[in-house]
Amino acid sequence: MDTSIFGALSPDVSSPIPMYLQLAEYIAERIRDTQLPASTKLPPERQLALSCGVSRTTAINAYRKLEEWGLVRTKIGSGTYVTDTIVETAVHPVPWSQLLVPHPPSPLSSIMRDLVSGIVADTAISLATGLPDPALYPLEAFSDLQSRQLSNLNRGDMGHIPTEGYLPLRQSLASLHCQKGAPTAASNIAVVSGSQQGLYLLAKIFINPGDYVITESPTYLGVLPVFQAAGARLLTLPAPGPLQLDLLEDYLIRYRPKLLYLLPTFQNPSGRILSLSERQALLALAARHRLVIIEDDTYGELYYGQQPPPSLKTLDHYGGVIYLGTFSKILFPGLRVGWVTAPESVITRLALEKQYIDLHSANLSQWQLHEFLASGLLPGHLDAIRKEYQTRRDITASALKRYCGDRLIYSLPAGGFYFWCRLAHPFATARQLLHEATRLGVTFVPGEAFYPDAEGNKEFRLCFATNREEVQVEGIKRLGKSLDLLDKNFRHYDQAQFQPSKPLI
Amino acid sequence: MDTSIFGALSPDVSSPIPMYLQLAEYIAERIRDTQLPASTKLPPERQLALSCGVSRTTAINAYRKLEEWGLVRTKIGSGTYVTDTIVETAVHPVPWSQLLVPHPPSPLSSIMRDLVSGIVADTAISLATGLPDPALYPLEAFSDLQSRQLSNLNRGDMGHIPTEGYLPLRQSLASLHCQKGAPTAASNIAVVSGSQQGLYLLAKIFINPGDYVITESPTYLGVLPVFQAAGARLLTLPAPGPLQLDLLEDYLIRYRPKLLYLLPTFQNPSGRILSLSERQALLALAARHRLVIIEDDTYGELYYGQQPPPSLKTLDHYGGVIYLGTFSKILFPGLRVGWVTAPESVITRLALEKQYIDLHSANLSQWQLHEFLASGLLPGHLDAIRKEYQTRRDITASALKRYCGDRLIYSLPAGGFYFWCRLAHPFATARQLLHEATRLGVTFVPGEAFYPDAEGNKEFRLCFATNREEVQVEGIKRLGKSLDLLDKNFRHYDQAQFQPSKPLI
Repeated sequence: MDTSIFGALSPDVSSPIPMYLQLAEYIAERIRDTQLPASTKLPPERQLALSCGVSRTTAINAYRKLEEWGLVRTKIGSGTYVTDTIVETAVHPVPWSQLLVPHPPSPLSSIMRDLVSGIVADTAISLATGLPDPALYPLEAFSDLQSRQLSNLNRGDMGHIPTEGYLPLRQSLASLHCQKGAPTAASNIAVVSGSQQGLYLLAKIFINPGDYVITESPTYLGVLPVFQAAGARLLTLPAPGPLQLDLLEDYLIRYRPKLLYLLPTFQNPSGRILSLSERQALLALAARHRLVIIEDDTYGELYYGQQPPPSLKTLDHYGGVIYLGTFSKILFPGLRVGWVTAPESVITRLALEKQYIDLHSANLSQWQLHEFLASGLLPGHLDAIRKEYQTRRDITASALKRYCGDRLIYSLPAGGFYFWCRLAHPFATARQLLHEATRLGVTFVPGEAFYPDAEGNKEFRLCFATNREEVQVEGIKRLGKSLDLLDKNFRHYDQAQFQPSKPLI
Repeated sequence: MDTSIFGALSPDVSSPIPMYLQLAEYIAERIRDTQLPASTKLPPERQLALSCGVSRTTAINAYRKLEEWGLVRTKIGSGTYVTDTIVETAVHPVPWSQLLVPHPPSPLSSIMRDLVSGIVADTAISLATGLPDPALYPLEAFSDLQSRQLSNLNRGDMGHIPTEGYLPLRQSLASLHCQKGAPTAASNIAVVSGSQQGLYLLAKIFINPGDYVITESPTYLGVLPVFQAAGARLLTLPAPGPLQLDLLEDYLIRYRPKLLYLLPTFQNPSGRILSLSERQALLALAARHRLVIIEDDTYGELYYGQQPPPSLKTLDHYGGVIYLGTFSKILFPGLRVGWVTAPESVITRLALEKQYIDLHSANLSQWQLHEFLASGLLPGHLDAIRKEYQTRRDITASALKRYCGDRLIYSLPAGGFYFWCRLAHPFATARQLLHEATRLGVTFVPGEAFYPDAEGNKEFRLCFATNREEVQVEGIKRLGKSLDLLDKNFRHYDQAQFQPSKPLI
């Protein structure tokens, strides 16, 4: 045996992995790669400790660990030996990639992960993620309520609760609907872990493979992989501009779709808002065809001027609207509390599905949120954030005007978190702009991410909510410089025989 | 028009639904059932208010609401009329039951829902749900930590975080493994919403329809519908008694199963614990066949005597063990925090699936749990609850001896939450006993719920953790009385010509 094997180990004292384990792992590795073949007698503990510069206890524990793993055997009075039975099996790793169910390759999944993890944002100014500003999260109020209300809490409510959610919270949410003019009982509410889970569950309970589903185009990017994984065939309604009821009716007659998913108020990403008469006409058509509508109202409370028309749920006269709400944008995403409002039979079926996924959503979040709502703190909080986000929208608008001028086409959003921009340049694409922007330290989401069909290559989404004013203005300034670079690139191409079909990246 | 229609309404002032909405709903209902046919002129607001005993404002708002719903039209200077276009469509409700994806009929789903919702427990002493005692939840410590640590919190950590979980918590969890002798990095950990979600995700990423999966029989009841919904074909290993390695090897050769799911320590429901040598032999066999093992270690910390042998994860020498942990039994279920420990490639694939389901688990729970672990509060808490639950186990054992005598067969569990009992009576079933027990105000889970195959009709599970001593003893006393009744029933049958094939319920 080559005893220098043991001298070569240099334990890492700063690692959270205890020294004896590092030593055991090192020797195990040498056994697996047969540098220490079967039946080899290993050095006595004292000698091992000396060779590796560790204490004798560490050496003893390392051998004990190797014995646990079945890699060595101790013969009393004789010493420690590499075993010969298990070793041959240990050298072939488990073929994980063969064992895993193939994942549908979706370019969206990586974009979504980046948006959620904020990876993009680490080194640059992010105008990408639709994140409320952490400075505006009412964390102090939540913490205060937790301390003050703990003695009033029924401790059993921190045990298992019904899958549909914490009953006092379901009652609070039903009241919110009633106040807005939609008669709603607690039994019509299911609390879910963010509106994303609401979408996942609705897809599970409504969509059979091959079913037609209508979404807007562009639309919330997180819905597309969910509907696709459920086997839906997607039909699309253009999101910006007036609601195309003729096209919708055509779909209804031709395909008998299962669902229409839409964001009627401050649509993500386009910012479009449906007028009251559009809503009424939509509902009349939907009622005639018994079309189920999923209304995603993520941004409904975030208006910066006139209050938007009532939600479809409030206007619903045929009982076919399922409402999806969330506190991620108006309180904080880390609560992971959204809700689904629907007929009781749908809520029951949804809970049947949800129980296999997580039994129920986190009680700690549900309880604290209920206390926040019950304390009447929401309306004041909404006023405060509307004011702040309105300022940020306006500052973003002036910065866009100043630094990007007429090179971008967009309208001023009346609510929500986003500017939806289109490049005026006849050939440049949003990905090309992102390429320049990333180098200059600013990011956004290219439009393609929001389209079910491969469209939108000249469009992109800018979030104006996350950053404080100076940072936001600096971000837009960098965007302006990125446009300069893009122009320069194209002039360069013009001179050197312009080839519009050749992509820049 | 029959104006008495309006006098018949009696608004409910205690309802959370505002008065004007109740009125609007009432009139809408009369329009739908054609008591108020199309084009009917409705009474002026003042008269409506009088007939219904509400204020004029309420009447005005009710008409406005009906107009919003498209059910009435106001002609200026003329009055309010029932519309004639929408009405015909509004009378047919949406056929929800036709639209929903059929749900696999599973008797387990209702049992699970009852267990989680505690419906069973409302009127009786529940020995059914595997719930830790709410009096032992460390809620005060959590609340204190939230107040004290809020100023140290990076507020951005309450925004969106990576799907795999809150990094400091993942590090804490990796350290727990390292301390026990399983080298683990944060990248090997995914935080999930309870171990139930871990099971759901693992089923999603590993099981293709038709794949063979091995479970113990009986086993945790929440896993069965998850594996079945994924399309798995189940093979079973008997849970009580020594591990049947021959049978396992036979399965491995004959069916090449994808997974083995088991609880090696204080198995739910049987309480069985695998010895160190059984664990090592299992791992040697698994390594030879590249079998992936999901080790569910829900009860590993709940030992009431000698510490159990190391987990399979700690003993794993071939890298094929996926570990599933949870804080539901040792802290409180309402945290909804569990975790999966696995090779990084599995964690990455699992996160890809989880992002569509809920983006990530609740940050509030993850942050508070991390602070709890970082404050070093876990070991002391575990000592305290082990002591308490040991007392309850012993008290339950003496009560069983006293009130049930030799009519039940069971062994003393060395850990976990349950007595796994078998009726000594040659014909009686656990369901029959439950029938009597429910009438006397005590419940438990009949054994069939834990069997993938229709077995276990003489067995049942009693939880000894949830109730304080007096309640627990009273519960067992009632169980004893239920056995008396059962005996009496059978004697009655004996006299009146005993028919063993005829079920009692």
